[in-house]
Amino acid sequence: MKPNGIITLSTDFGPKDNFVGIMKGVIYGINPQARIVDITHHIPPQNVNTASFILNSSYGYFPDGTIHVVVVDPGVGSNRRILAVATDNYFFIAPDNQILKYIFYKNETLTIVEVLNKTYFHKHISRTFHGRDIFAPVAAHLSNGVPIEALGNVITDFDRGEIHKPIFLNKKIIGTIIHIDAFGNLITNIEEKDLSNKFLNIKIGKRILNNLSNSYAEVKIGEPLAIFGSSNFLEIAIRNGNAQRKLSLNIGDKIEVILSK
Amino acid sequence: MKPNGIITLSTDFGPKDNFVGIMKGVIYGINPQARIVDITHHIPPQNVNTASFILNSSYGYFPDGTIHVVVVDPGVGSNRRILAVATDNYFFIAPDNQILKYIFYKNETLTIVEVLNKTYFHKHISRTFHGRDIFAPVAAHLSNGVPIEALGNVITDFDRGEIHKPIFLNKKIIGTIIHIDAFGNLITNIEEKDLSNKFLNIKIGKRILNNLSNSYAEVKIGEPLAIFGSSNFLEIAIRNGNAQRKLSLNIGDKIEVILSK
Amino acid sequence: MKPNGIITLSTDFGPKDNFVGIMKGVIYGINPQARIVDITHHIPPQNVNTASFILNSSYGYFPDGTIHVVVVDPGVGSNRRILAVATDNYFFIAPDNQILKYIFYKNETLTIVEVLNKTYFHKHISRTFHGRDIFAPVAAHLSNGVPIEALGNVITDFDRGEIHKPIFLNKKIIGTIIHIDAFGNLITNIEEKDLSNKFLNIKIGKRILNNLSNSYAEVKIGEPLAIFGSSNFLEIAIRNGNAQRKLSLNIGDKIEVILSK
Repeated sequence: MKPNGIITLSTDFGPKDNFVGIMKGVIYGINPQARIVDITHHIPPQNVNTASFILNSSYGYFPDGTIHVVVVDPGVGSNRRILAVATDNYFFIAPDNQILKYIFYKNETLTIVEVLNKTYFHKHISRTFHGRDIFAPVAAHLSNGVPIEALGNVITDFDRGEIHKPIFLNKKIIGTIIHIDAFGNLITNIEEKDLSNKFLNIKIGKRILNNLSNSYAEVKIGEPLAIFGSSNFLEIAIRNGNAQRKLSLNIGDKIEVILSK
Repeated sequence: MKPNGIITLSTDFGPKDNFVGIMKGVIYGINPQARIVDITHHIPPQNVNTASFILNSSYGYFPDGTIHVVVVDPGVGSNRRILAVATDNYFFIAPDNQILKYIFYKNETLTIVEVLNKTYFHKHISRTFHGRDIFAPVAAHLSNGVPIEALGNVITDFDRGEIHKPIFLNKKIIGTIIHIDAFGNLITNIEEKDLSNKFLNIKIGKRILNNLSNSYAEVKIGEPLAIFGSSNFLEIAIRNGNAQRKLSLNIGDKIEVILSK
Repeated sequence: MKPNGIITLSTDFGPKDNFVGIMKGVIYGINPQARIVDITHHIPPQNVNTASFILNSSYGYFPDGTIHVVVVDPGVGSNRRILAVATDNYFFIAPDNQILKYIFYKNETLTIVEVLNKTYFHKHISRTFHGRDIFAPVAAHLSNGVPIEALGNVITDFDRGEIHKPIFLNKKIIGTIIHIDAFGNLITNIEEKDLSNKFLNIKIGKRILNNLSNSYAEVKIGEPLAIFGSSNFLEIAIRNGNAQRKLSLNIGDKIEVILSK
């Protein structure tokens, strides 16, 4: 696969600082024809789990050959590794901290390189801003056609992370909450195709929901609902409220979908 | 008129989610050479009136052939229609919910198409994210030169909306508040050219303002003022305060400008 | 030096309004091939000192020939001047209000022009939005190859501003707080190279810090630390706290670094 010149950026830098702008300056200095797309810079600080979810629900909408850069990097300054990854369709540059766990899970053909070759780094490497000094220049060189193998050594002992898949039993599916969004909505790992129209009801703690909703407006304000969101995962929400707080549930907690036969 | 490759985006998505980034990925997948400009993603949720005002004060600063996409879409998931519109200078893609009311008012030559042709949609259409599944791909295909008539059927029964124009009497102009900005400033439909230097004073409820200000600093903190803002409409503001709350006025309320003879 | 087609924007406009989008529309209308990069639009309103610091820590990461536009402009509407500046590597367009003080200080070869030639302005000049009416079109024309001298008159009586440099004594360096960031961290004018490994301790008011930290996590929550940040200046911070408030220090205040011999 060849790079297409598009580089996406996902970070926890927030909008106030000049960090994202500086990364873009570094990229344009190496590849003046790059097209740079912000996915989001509002990932909660150092929240690797949210970053992995956001990336997973975004990357596939970009054309083949896009380079996805994710800088949520609690380990910056330590000796954590930086990975460059090629799948059949995309490139990824991210810390070796499980941010890419969905990418590893979904793709059989993977080239995974530990980024080490300082030829492709900024000339001065700071302790605190590897987005500027390593991630941005490496992405730009990759977009110019530098082969991924030139960036460092191919490795196999990267941190693959753990993916919770639903457990399919005879009459029910046991899902896991894998993400909580900014509104407190609980996103599970159950996809629409998992149900094959056999939905009966959902058990969330002691509560039971008898319906799948098509919109938030279908329940009263303050009431819980279950809905398939725009990323096609089953979500538990409270209309005009915060489901995480109201239902006292968190990432890793289980929900059960009871199926009709 | 030919598309120039520029696509603008105005939405109520806010900055936190990856929705805008995903729309850009879809656009680049169809037209890799598109230039995409964010107008704002901070339109208050589902506030069609603000969206129409923001669009009206923005679109004319773009070069001819620009495609303006507006996704403020309370009706998503219902059977509301999506419109593609061509004027002599621009294209617009928006729900049929009055967002384009100023465009309809100002332009005599209009081609208005109900967007229906799934050839130009994303392959899977979700219930909740038509920005990704319809608006973005349709805009991208339009920017590639697909004729607007290919997107669906030309219609005449779109929702034209209502434009409040000032009422010109012998010695006064009766204006209407058409927009309230994020600071609580009240923007009226009276333009600078409407006054032709004959301003005497302004009646707002029981208050009378005797001056037009050139800057906010011309009155004391907490005092009201009248000023022509950057979009050339007469605004009522409170210096360092919120005019909407302090004056208890709202969209649709009237103000009177008394003219000297 | 030739312009490279990149134009950066730094403003205090915030994200909510359509002001930045409109400036981009004006630029694309004049140079359809411009590449526009947002550095930040979150400079605190009218805070010229922060703007000068942000620009100083950003501009050098862009390739030669980049045009940097800064619109933090408390004097808009008055007769303050607008400057276009060329150094050996970059162009700058900004009000004549000391925003460019670091640029003036660091560069010996400078062409400084008062922007006056209305040929390169928007056709209508508002009182309040010179970003749209002057800065954006002038930057776009410059990026098209219009010589800087065509924009107005070369001047020498611009407002050069004042740069505080550290005072180097035998056994100590007296630094000045030149910037306070959004978290209340105090950034001084002392650079890493100024210390040449002779750091002993730091006096901040009555406090003494005996260590330079490599990360925030090296001190307890609520404790102060000294660290070289990503722009290579010595910073005083409170872990998970606000150093400006806790230490009652402000821009212009002094700190002393005691050196070992």
